[in-house]
Amino acid sequence: MTRLVNEKDLLAKIIRAFPPTGKNALGLPLDDDAAVFSPRVGYQTILTCDWMLEGSHFLRHKHPADAVGWKCLTRAASDIAATGGLPRYLLLSLALPESLSGTWLKEFLRGLRRAATTLNCKLAGGDTTRRDDILINVTVIGEIANGQAIGRSGAKPGDQLFVTGTLGEAEVGLKMLRRPRGFAGPKNAALAVRKHLYPEPRLAIGQWLARNRLASAMMDLSDGLSSDLPRLCQASGVGAKIVAEQLPVSSLVADQEALSLALNGGDDYELLFAVRPQKVPEIPHKYGGIPLTHVGEITPGKKILLEEVGEIRFLAAGGWDPFRK
Amino acid sequence: MTRLVNEKDLLAKIIRAFPPTGKNALGLPLDDDAAVFSPRVGYQTILTCDWMLEGSHFLRHKHPADAVGWKCLTRAASDIAATGGLPRYLLLSLALPESLSGTWLKEFLRGLRRAATTLNCKLAGGDTTRRDDILINVTVIGEIANGQAIGRSGAKPGDQLFVTGTLGEAEVGLKMLRRPRGFAGPKNAALAVRKHLYPEPRLAIGQWLARNRLASAMMDLSDGLSSDLPRLCQASGVGAKIVAEQLPVSSLVADQEALSLALNGGDDYELLFAVRPQKVPEIPHKYGGIPLTHVGEITPGKKILLEEVGEIRFLAAGGWDPFRK
Repeated sequence: MTRLVNEKDLLAKIIRAFPPTGKNALGLPLDDDAAVFSPRVGYQTILTCDWMLEGSHFLRHKHPADAVGWKCLTRAASDIAATGGLPRYLLLSLALPESLSGTWLKEFLRGLRRAATTLNCKLAGGDTTRRDDILINVTVIGEIANGQAIGRSGAKPGDQLFVTGTLGEAEVGLKMLRRPRGFAGPKNAALAVRKHLYPEPRLAIGQWLARNRLASAMMDLSDGLSSDLPRLCQASGVGAKIVAEQLPVSSLVADQEALSLALNGGDDYELLFAVRPQKVPEIPHKYGGIPLTHVGEITPGKKILLEEVGEIRFLAAGGWDPFRK
Repeated sequence: MTRLVNEKDLLAKIIRAFPPTGKNALGLPLDDDAAVFSPRVGYQTILTCDWMLEGSHFLRHKHPADAVGWKCLTRAASDIAATGGLPRYLLLSLALPESLSGTWLKEFLRGLRRAATTLNCKLAGGDTTRRDDILINVTVIGEIANGQAIGRSGAKPGDQLFVTGTLGEAEVGLKMLRRPRGFAGPKNAALAVRKHLYPEPRLAIGQWLARNRLASAMMDLSDGLSSDLPRLCQASGVGAKIVAEQLPVSSLVADQEALSLALNGGDDYELLFAVRPQKVPEIPHKYGGIPLTHVGEITPGKKILLEEVGEIRFLAAGGWDPFRK
């Protein structure tokens, strides 16, 4: 195992992982104090950052290092997708034990580089230090044409609610990943594990919705629909009703568990968006191969309701919250 | 003590600390997925981020919470000062134990808000989670007029080296802060403690140097001159010679200790900059009340030398490095 001599060596490893220039995408040395870039005229800048902490967001011995690298960037980029924007640059803040500066760091950087290449998002800088736990914070800087950004606050009663992809599958994947050895899990469990480890932010769908002004409000689903939907509703000053039978649940687990996971499972990084009634016909069943599913509607008042086999009840927030264990 | 119920409550506390609108400086709710702003035409964007971790960068029981809040922003803003730019927005990533969500958090936010107000830098967003240790990461987004940014790589042999303020005083302050109770320390120790706890990034000096194109290379001194100067020299492909007697050392400690601290003490957040020989007469002895001191020169080759009472020796990097303990 390679041992670190100092912070400079760690930085050098990160820089080498992002070839070919040894400089960042901005033409500046990656170890300068700060990165400087020229924003495109006619575009607004989008800012977001996300924690990815060992023990809180991943487990050192369950999550492959390259998946940690992939996910720390893609989950932050999902916030950019939720505005309809395009990721451009990332800042990587990394703290790790000296003993992980060999193979683990190499694999981590491989996953991060693969995500950065896939998303066309360039490393612009960061900060490194030593720590017993692995701590990661990623800032993503994106852009969007003036006036096209979609927030959470534009939904109105009568708007119809849609989600991308399948809900709850990443949580199925996490359960599989944490199962005891020898327990095989359902058929196709590998698909769910992959969705948990290597989420794919819905950037193309977000950009298409923004460009065509199809969504009145949008957010990404990171903590689970039952926790995230109230946030969109609160920002918009509205309520919502979801129809259980319409939810695109995982087919890997039994019906009732699938519904519970679709409502409360975290880490899906799918998009939830509201569409004005007259624009609903413009929403296809799929975009770029990803299902777009009508799951409910925005209502007056502040209640978040779930309709199941014709019965309506309050939907309690049961998703992931670091302060509730 | 207030107890947190969930992440939303923590976010609400942060938002309330940045009145009056409940929205961020960009006119968006602070709890949206991402912040969107319009960059000024004719300006480039500057990006930087910094860790501020309990145990690594501050001690919970030695550093007042409001100083942690002040310093987590000002040390990141110092990287913006080092480019000659102006800070505009900040992203706050905060992880803390539930038990600190009352008084500690309130004091922390008070210090952060005071720094944000002083620097005219507006909270644009962030991320929060629960953790046993206090973890902070701050991203600062700045701006600078096209083509004015100063990097580390422009120094040439013959350029003269200058520093702002006094060197080593923050380290004196840290020693005072960590001393056993009952040990008073030198007269005026409070000044040094204040410099350690509440650093003031040299933004006005950095901007003046950039606007008037007076510096060929610049960086901020965060780890100590003996560790930071080689970084500037390596980026520029040059060497340097520092003259011990010219260093603006602390007057609070004995001469030899003062020299050692000026060379190796961290956390000063002063600026180190190189000036072409013909522009040296344009550098005054003070700018805005802060001393600008000529401390040496850039040399051909790669050696970092220290001249002391006429004798020249190699200067070894003895500043702060998290991987060397």
